[in-house]
Amino acid sequence: MLGTGGGGDVRTGALAAKRAIQAYGEVPLVALAELPDDALVVPLSGIGAPTVSQEMIHGEDEPRRIAEEVERIFGRPPSAVMSSEIGGSNGVAPVAWAAQLGLPLLDADGMGRAFPEVQMVSMYVAGLPADLVIMSDIVGNVVTIRPIDGLWSERLARAVCVAAGSHALMADYVLTAAGARGAVIEGTVSRAIAIGRSTERTAEPLRALRAELGAVRLITGKLTDVERRTAGGFVRGTATIDGTGDDRDRVLTLELQNENLVALEDGQVKAMVPDLITVVDTETAAAVPTEGLRYGQRVTVLAWPCDPLWRTPKGLDTAGPRAFGYDLDYVPIEELAKEESGG
Amino acid sequence: MLGTGGGGDVRTGALAAKRAIQAYGEVPLVALAELPDDALVVPLSGIGAPTVSQEMIHGEDEPRRIAEEVERIFGRPPSAVMSSEIGGSNGVAPVAWAAQLGLPLLDADGMGRAFPEVQMVSMYVAGLPADLVIMSDIVGNVVTIRPIDGLWSERLARAVCVAAGSHALMADYVLTAAGARGAVIEGTVSRAIAIGRSTERTAEPLRALRAELGAVRLITGKLTDVERRTAGGFVRGTATIDGTGDDRDRVLTLELQNENLVALEDGQVKAMVPDLITVVDTETAAAVPTEGLRYGQRVTVLAWPCDPLWRTPKGLDTAGPRAFGYDLDYVPIEELAKEESGG
Repeated sequence: MLGTGGGGDVRTGALAAKRAIQAYGEVPLVALAELPDDALVVPLSGIGAPTVSQEMIHGEDEPRRIAEEVERIFGRPPSAVMSSEIGGSNGVAPVAWAAQLGLPLLDADGMGRAFPEVQMVSMYVAGLPADLVIMSDIVGNVVTIRPIDGLWSERLARAVCVAAGSHALMADYVLTAAGARGAVIEGTVSRAIAIGRSTERTAEPLRALRAELGAVRLITGKLTDVERRTAGGFVRGTATIDGTGDDRDRVLTLELQNENLVALEDGQVKAMVPDLITVVDTETAAAVPTEGLRYGQRVTVLAWPCDPLWRTPKGLDTAGPRAFGYDLDYVPIEELAKEESGG
Repeated sequence: MLGTGGGGDVRTGALAAKRAIQAYGEVPLVALAELPDDALVVPLSGIGAPTVSQEMIHGEDEPRRIAEEVERIFGRPPSAVMSSEIGGSNGVAPVAWAAQLGLPLLDADGMGRAFPEVQMVSMYVAGLPADLVIMSDIVGNVVTIRPIDGLWSERLARAVCVAAGSHALMADYVLTAAGARGAVIEGTVSRAIAIGRSTERTAEPLRALRAELGAVRLITGKLTDVERRTAGGFVRGTATIDGTGDDRDRVLTLELQNENLVALEDGQVKAMVPDLITVVDTETAAAVPTEGLRYGQRVTVLAWPCDPLWRTPKGLDTAGPRAFGYDLDYVPIEELAKEESGG
């Protein structure tokens, strides 16, 4: 994830959202089609290394300072908040930020998943110029970046983030509703709610979750090794899962950079970015974020298809395996799974 | 110095100024009293490590991009350019930036010398809120920082500078003429011109320079050791001068952080920030910037009093020896020189 907004994993984000709703009232969900063309949508996300963000207390002034800067620049206030990435805490914390600002939340996001780098958003892939980033940190600094492109956006935002204590709130792009059409991934907040509900009130949450996601099960087992280091504002590392039950004698390794990027077994790639690879608790089907991985956890690794946008040439250039330094040609999870059952 | 605008030392800055004057016309010098109260003054400087800046080609678009951002923020264009620091290339390069923008140059600066850090300016000491920094780098990125104070201004600007390749053009503060009164050091451009002229058309440039500056001569000798490293956007190190002629058997050591900070002889402090310590060529009296120090150079080290602003409690807090990590009580150069002749 870009970082963590409410602080840490999705549960602390959810707690922040609940508290903000209690304090400021409910947050309406709006569809992009409901907004007038010139309405301003502010995509917000926390940026930072998750292991650092967990330790940070998140203030309530950051969204307000960003909204003030938006109004200063555009001459009118924002009309809606959008989650930059629907995965992890950044998928839930925008509810808190919207509540604090008294704004609706757009039923859309910029990833349809989580990604570690600033330029890895649908707006960039759709060709919108990455020409404005507004950052607000906990001490009250506001930094506005007008980058020449998405890569410089990432480079400068990351430097500011590290200088600000490896955590900041960020508006990456400020979109008009007209500009957002076709450049954001719509319906992802509703989908996240549906996914969450699928695991409630069922005796078999994992089965229900797989069905809702259309996910391939890569392995069920026990976490036997987790190696992590924080470097340059990212958490990088590997996680090893030893199979149990039907999967005994199998070993799956995950390559991490804030997110799970590649799943390997016996040197063979089983799933890779931009498809989604998620570690869930085998019993509850609750997602285990990379910073929550611990020795001995009983987990299942699921993989499922990303939004078609990420499978376009520019999508793969932006967030395919090579964008993360892996010398791999992208093969969709559906085909990898087919080879598996065929072989 | 904060960095080097035209690239490198004062000579390359001067070359940039000459070229810009040829291309865009002469730059009028204006006194602060001549500007209406609401006129916007943009203090410009290069920020970066001199050893890096020397290698950088400086573009002509950076001043324009900063002026555009000023107009975007204030709703009116700037009326004058000011040098943030009159020392080094940043003292001369603003002539080029003013020429490129078709603006006059204010006869004032923010230091009355050079300092390595962003918050070490008269505006900060005078209590003006350090609430706006605009940076423009060679590739075209523009970053606007609204820091909570001068220390965060330095921290964030330095991070952006390093991410941008350790070199950028920067407007630190944007002043109204009314706000600048009492918060800038006036007359320093005229004084720099007078100092330069004092060494022309004389058989004894060093003597003429000392007289013009009212400077104490710390040593005349040969540079026998220079140790430098670039770290965190700064050049740090030491320089050793072995005395020659009347000064034989004496050894002076200079502590550097972009600028000469402390002069030591036999463990005794001979001069210290915020007073000025300058290494000049013994024959020509031309200043040798820290990045130009080379083994074998025949040099004289001069020291003279800083502007009274820097001797106030807040001035010393900001740029006295302790601000640079030296556990020294500040003693003015006049007193140190008196002890010397007395002892």
